[in-house]
Amino acid sequence: MAEEDRPKEEAQNEWAQKAWRALSAVRRQSPLIQCITNFVSMDLMANTLLAAGASPAMLHSLQEIPDFTPQAHALLINVGTLSDAWLPAMKSAAEFATQSGRPWVLDPVAAGATGFRLKACLELVGLRPTVIRGNGSEIIALSKASLGATQGVDSIHESVDAMEYAKSLAKASGAIVAVSGAVDIVTDGQQVVGARNGVAMMQRITATGCSVTALIAAFVAVDPLHALEATVLALSVFGVAGEMGMEMAKGPASLRMHLIDSLYGLDQPAVLSRINITSLS
Amino acid sequence: MAEEDRPKEEAQNEWAQKAWRALSAVRRQSPLIQCITNFVSMDLMANTLLAAGASPAMLHSLQEIPDFTPQAHALLINVGTLSDAWLPAMKSAAEFATQSGRPWVLDPVAAGATGFRLKACLELVGLRPTVIRGNGSEIIALSKASLGATQGVDSIHESVDAMEYAKSLAKASGAIVAVSGAVDIVTDGQQVVGARNGVAMMQRITATGCSVTALIAAFVAVDPLHALEATVLALSVFGVAGEMGMEMAKGPASLRMHLIDSLYGLDQPAVLSRINITSLS
Amino acid sequence: MAEEDRPKEEAQNEWAQKAWRALSAVRRQSPLIQCITNFVSMDLMANTLLAAGASPAMLHSLQEIPDFTPQAHALLINVGTLSDAWLPAMKSAAEFATQSGRPWVLDPVAAGATGFRLKACLELVGLRPTVIRGNGSEIIALSKASLGATQGVDSIHESVDAMEYAKSLAKASGAIVAVSGAVDIVTDGQQVVGARNGVAMMQRITATGCSVTALIAAFVAVDPLHALEATVLALSVFGVAGEMGMEMAKGPASLRMHLIDSLYGLDQPAVLSRINITSLS
Repeated sequence: MAEEDRPKEEAQNEWAQKAWRALSAVRRQSPLIQCITNFVSMDLMANTLLAAGASPAMLHSLQEIPDFTPQAHALLINVGTLSDAWLPAMKSAAEFATQSGRPWVLDPVAAGATGFRLKACLELVGLRPTVIRGNGSEIIALSKASLGATQGVDSIHESVDAMEYAKSLAKASGAIVAVSGAVDIVTDGQQVVGARNGVAMMQRITATGCSVTALIAAFVAVDPLHALEATVLALSVFGVAGEMGMEMAKGPASLRMHLIDSLYGLDQPAVLSRINITSLS
Repeated sequence: MAEEDRPKEEAQNEWAQKAWRALSAVRRQSPLIQCITNFVSMDLMANTLLAAGASPAMLHSLQEIPDFTPQAHALLINVGTLSDAWLPAMKSAAEFATQSGRPWVLDPVAAGATGFRLKACLELVGLRPTVIRGNGSEIIALSKASLGATQGVDSIHESVDAMEYAKSLAKASGAIVAVSGAVDIVTDGQQVVGARNGVAMMQRITATGCSVTALIAAFVAVDPLHALEATVLALSVFGVAGEMGMEMAKGPASLRMHLIDSLYGLDQPAVLSRINITSLS
Repeated sequence: MAEEDRPKEEAQNEWAQKAWRALSAVRRQSPLIQCITNFVSMDLMANTLLAAGASPAMLHSLQEIPDFTPQAHALLINVGTLSDAWLPAMKSAAEFATQSGRPWVLDPVAAGATGFRLKACLELVGLRPTVIRGNGSEIIALSKASLGATQGVDSIHESVDAMEYAKSLAKASGAIVAVSGAVDIVTDGQQVVGARNGVAMMQRITATGCSVTALIAAFVAVDPLHALEATVLALSVFGVAGEMGMEMAKGPASLRMHLIDSLYGLDQPAVLSRINITSLS
C-alpha cells in the first residue's frame, strides 16, 4: 500500500466500525418504525426491518395516528401507490412525528411522474422530513420544483449527475438527501458522502429502494442526532447484504431471499471487510 | 418409558392422528376461505392457504359481501392495516358469516395500540367470532377491555402469562381464544390446550401470525363443530411446517420459502412424529 | 420423424422464433406497464415484469391517470380486490389508454362471483380492452353475461370447454380472449391457438395468473398490431419459465422463486427447444 492511501484506509475503517455499531444498536434497541408505504413494498419492507432487528408497524389510518405515531421511534412515508385517500394520513403522521421529536424519512417515489404526485411530495417536503431518499430522477424533479424551476418528467439520471440537485434540495428543505444509484450519495447540502456497496441486480427486484429507505428510518431512529451518518450506514449495510446475497443468487428472486437472509445474519467481519464509504466533498 | 408416561404418549398420538386427518380433510375439501386482511399479509396468507390445499379469496368490498360471504366456508378478519374505509365491510362480513352459519376467525392485530383499533376490535368481538387468535399483548388488551378494566398499551407478554386473560376473553365472548407464543395456548374458557410446535425465527417473518390465523379458519371450516380442536391442530401443523422449514433455512427469508414448501409437502409420518400438543387444564 | 409431421414442426419452430424475438424486444425496449391490480398480486406482478425486462408502475389514483396513463406503453387492469373506491380509476385509465392508442389488458378475476363484480367487469369489457385473460369460469361467466344469458356462479371449467364461450366473448367485445388452463387457449373469435407450456403447481402459487396477464400487457406493448400472437407468446414464455423453475422446485414457494429467476435468465436455446404452441382452429 502506498503511503498516501493510509488516511483513506483509516477513514474506511472508521466508517466500517460505525456501520457495525449502528447495526448492533438497531438489533439491540429494536426501534418501532411506523411505515405508511405503498402496497407493493409492504411485504419486503416489513421483512427487511425484521431481518435488521427493527419492529415494523404498517399503520396508515388517520384516526390512529394521534395515538400511534408518537409511540414510534421513527416514521417512514413512501408515496408509491399514492391516493387522495391516503395523503391526509401521510401529512398528519409527518406532523405528529415532528411534534413528538421523532425523525421521519420520505421516499418520493416517481415524484415527477404527475402533477398530483409532485404537489403531494412538495407538501410533504414542507413538513420537514429528516431524510429524503430517492433515485436521481426523483431527487432532480423535487429539487427543481422546490426551487420553482420548470418541471416535467425526467428521464433516467445517474446519481452522480444528481449531486448538485441533491445539495440544493438539502439546503432548501433542511433534510439529509440521499440519491440511490451506482454510487449512493448522501448530503446535508454541504458535506457529500458516497456509499458504494450493492449490486446492480437489486434494481430488478421491486421494493428494494423502498425497503432501504425504511432501513434508513431504523438507523436514524437509534441515532437521531447523526442523520447523515445513519443514512449512509443504512444504505451501505443494505448494499453489503445485497453483495453477499448475490454470491448465492441465480436471479432476482433468489437474490431477494438471500439478501434478507444475509441482512439477518450479517456479522462483524463481513461488515468490517466490505463497507465501502468515501467522502466526496 | 416409565409406566406413568403411557397415557401422555397415547394422548399425543391421538392429537397427531387428528392433525393428519384434519390436514387431509382440508386438502380433500379445499374449503373456500374469504380473507379480509391487512395489505402486508395478503401474499403469504394466500400462499399458506394454497399450500395447505384450501382456496383463498381476498375480497373486501362492502357491495360484494352479501353475495359472496355466504358462499365461503369460513371467513378470516384481520385488522392489521385497519381503516374506517374497511371496517364496515369487516362488520358486515362477520354478520353475514354468522347468519349463514359459517365460522369466522378474528385476528386482532395490535389491538391495544390505539383507541380506534381497540374499539373496532371490541365491536368485532361483539359479532361473535368462532375463534380469536392473537399474541399475548393483543389478547390481554382485548380481555381487559372486554371486562371494562383500565386499558393501555401493553408491553410484551409471554403467552403463558396471558392464559387467565384468554380464559376470561373466551368466557366473555363465547369464542375459542388462541394465544401465540413460545407455547401456543388455546382455550374455550374451561379447557386449555398447549401447542408446542414451531420455531422462534418464524417471528422474524412478517405475516406468519396472520397466515396461521387464516389456516385456523381453513381447519375450522372442515370441522366447525370442534373449533377448539381445529384451532390447536392448525397451529400445530403450521408449527411443524416451520420446524421442517427451519432444517433447511439460512435465515428468515429462506425459512419463509421452506415453511410453505414443507406445508405443501407435509406427509403422515412427519405429522405423526412431530405434533406436540398437551392438555394444560 | 414421419413426413406428415414436418409442417407441424415448422410451425412450432416459427412460434419459438417469434417467442424469442418478442422476449428480446421486451428486454430491449423495457416498456412501461401501468398496473391497476389487486393487493395480493402486486409484489409478484412487479417482479415478473422486472424479471422479463419491463418497467412496472403500480399507480391507481384517479387524479394521476390523465397525466400518467398516456405515458405508459400498456395498461393492465385486474379486478381481484375490487372496490367502489378503485373502480372509477380503472374505468378512467381504460378510457385514457384507448384514447392514447395504448393497448390495455383486462383480468376479470372471479367475474361471476358477485353481481357487483360481474357488472364492473362488463363495464370494463365495454371500454374495449385489447386482451381479456381469465380462467374458464371467469371467461364463461363474462361471455354468458355479455350475451345476456342467465348468470350464476360457475363451477370449475376446463379451458377447452370454454373455447366456444371465449370465441363468443371475443366476437362480442372485439378483444383477444385468453383462457388459462391445462392448455391455454387464445382466440380473436375466429382463429384459436393453444399454448401448452407450464406446470400444474403454478396454480398453487397466488397471483401467477395475475402476473402472466401483466406479462401479456408487456408483450402487447412491444407489438400492439399483433395482439393475438403477443398474448400466446407471453403465456408460453411464462409457462417455459415455470417448467424450468419446476425442475429446481421442492414446492410452490421455491417454484415461485425459481420461476422468476428462470424468466430473468431465459436464453434462446431454452425458448427454442421448449415453446409448445399449436393452432387449434
